[in-house]
Amino acid sequence: MPKAADLPTPALVVDTGALEHNLTAMAAALPGARCRPHVKAHKTTALARRQAALGHRSFTCATPREMVGLARAGLGDDLLLANEVVDADRLAGLASLDARVTIALDSEATIDAAARAGLREAVIDVNVGLPRCGCDPAQAGRLADLARAEGIEVRGVMGYEGHVVGLEDRAQRVEQTEQCMALLLKAHEQVGGELVSAGGTGTFDVNTWATEIQAGSYALMDTAYGKLGLPFLPALSVLATVISVSPGYAVADCGLKSLGMDHGNPTIDGATVWFCSDEHVTFGPDSDGSVRVGDRVTVWPAHVDPTVAYHERMHLVDGSDVVETWTIDLRGW
Amino acid sequence: MPKAADLPTPALVVDTGALEHNLTAMAAALPGARCRPHVKAHKTTALARRQAALGHRSFTCATPREMVGLARAGLGDDLLLANEVVDADRLAGLASLDARVTIALDSEATIDAAARAGLREAVIDVNVGLPRCGCDPAQAGRLADLARAEGIEVRGVMGYEGHVVGLEDRAQRVEQTEQCMALLLKAHEQVGGELVSAGGTGTFDVNTWATEIQAGSYALMDTAYGKLGLPFLPALSVLATVISVSPGYAVADCGLKSLGMDHGNPTIDGATVWFCSDEHVTFGPDSDGSVRVGDRVTVWPAHVDPTVAYHERMHLVDGSDVVETWTIDLRGW
Repeated sequence: MPKAADLPTPALVVDTGALEHNLTAMAAALPGARCRPHVKAHKTTALARRQAALGHRSFTCATPREMVGLARAGLGDDLLLANEVVDADRLAGLASLDARVTIALDSEATIDAAARAGLREAVIDVNVGLPRCGCDPAQAGRLADLARAEGIEVRGVMGYEGHVVGLEDRAQRVEQTEQCMALLLKAHEQVGGELVSAGGTGTFDVNTWATEIQAGSYALMDTAYGKLGLPFLPALSVLATVISVSPGYAVADCGLKSLGMDHGNPTIDGATVWFCSDEHVTFGPDSDGSVRVGDRVTVWPAHVDPTVAYHERMHLVDGSDVVETWTIDLRGW
Repeated sequence: MPKAADLPTPALVVDTGALEHNLTAMAAALPGARCRPHVKAHKTTALARRQAALGHRSFTCATPREMVGLARAGLGDDLLLANEVVDADRLAGLASLDARVTIALDSEATIDAAARAGLREAVIDVNVGLPRCGCDPAQAGRLADLARAEGIEVRGVMGYEGHVVGLEDRAQRVEQTEQCMALLLKAHEQVGGELVSAGGTGTFDVNTWATEIQAGSYALMDTAYGKLGLPFLPALSVLATVISVSPGYAVADCGLKSLGMDHGNPTIDGATVWFCSDEHVTFGPDSDGSVRVGDRVTVWPAHVDPTVAYHERMHLVDGSDVVETWTIDLRGW
């Protein structure tokens, strides 16, 4: 069996124990369709297959490519594109999939584009406070009527409380999620349908109003979400090799092109990260002389999603063994 | 001819006029071997071929894959891996290339690894102030002797003033580059060889001490380098489609997975960028009502290198036409 110590670096590594813990914890907390795993976090069909095996047969996608990939892998029971798309070719591609395809709509333009492409099912995307996609809650009923008039079945609403999922104080998360969901439920009254789709890893056990939670990060986790006291373990890291050691600091071979940096620097146990360059991380070990050229270091990315998107594959590691290697096959657009 | 307006988004777009301006300006300022273009900035063999056609037949690489790709493309006249590598398999792969391969060495461990792999040429990498790779200048002569004793020809020294290249005040860049190069030249006295390799786009016309400049960003540029008043034009942007419009802001379909974020948010002409999500940029247009769903917007990344590394291809655009599409074939490791 290949050894983690022999992986060429930088290498995206997943701790199988932590991954299984996270997947089973979510499947127990939100079984079956109560969790609609968001694949944007891992972009990996093989991981989605594990989630499906644990009972989650419906998935959330952020891009058409994620949806096409899942459908082709036979995971197309119920795919929600929780994003707006107006590209006619891509929409037509989605309409022709051998899968159940539901798309988010938040404007007349997106309804027109979906109808022209022959898409048959949708949710109305409602703004619940995050300034991103989603219509004014007061417009949701009108848009649902319009979509139905165009021949699209409206399955319900979605509304992502993305400005709340990262709040470190749980009481604040609870209070603000309730406010967001009050907006969404009011829109749902006007829209109808069985779906109230919302939430993320940070509100998975807080958002009791949604019929399904679009959690993605819980599978692999990252240091930012790690501060929330959630029952999920950090499972994803970047394995790097020390290539240079100087008095007071050392350099390993992972950098800006193997790490999502929008949440700031990664962390290294027993060391302080100074800064990242394109292909380097410079760090100060807590104790001098403890690091040598050729040593392996585990680098914890601050944000998993854009980290994964840089890599071609992830290696599942159990102790010192690489038990499996998965292609990150849903990358790109 | 395909039109830029028809590109699926997000799309990495290169303005051919700006690119040609940048390439010819550098070829005029630092002709031939005076510039050793760093391919890490663009990771694209087709672009390296343009640089070679303008006289630069020697290249700088940051990863083994970049080097292997250039060699296989017939661009292996003189390749410098300006980085430390201790991976025996990768070093052996470099040693077997049909190319002139020179590697950076900064420790006994890296010398041992290179010698064991059969690499024949090297430079001694000297720390000139940036806390990253590179030996203490006082150790450079000893390491050169050690490498030569192991059968490696030492071609000279390299030392990257990476902490200076981004200083916005030119007088400061000049003063600090001189201090850095004083260290490098002192090390060079002990090391010998014909090469004094240093510099980057920010010091291309400031660093008059190096025999060759490792500039990479000049070809495509980015908003961070754009503040330095250099004679290069921003050539690379991400084309995005507006997918949602709300009072006061709009959302386009490019985000954290299509933009290097370590230098902060991208910029959009005529608008203020609010924030980026995985697949979205939320921005406030300067004038309300000026943006509609389906519109195209040009997003200027704050840092080119990690932006390019997210994309599979770049489209060369002349006005409204896509005149060529290049695969970013040197990505990964």
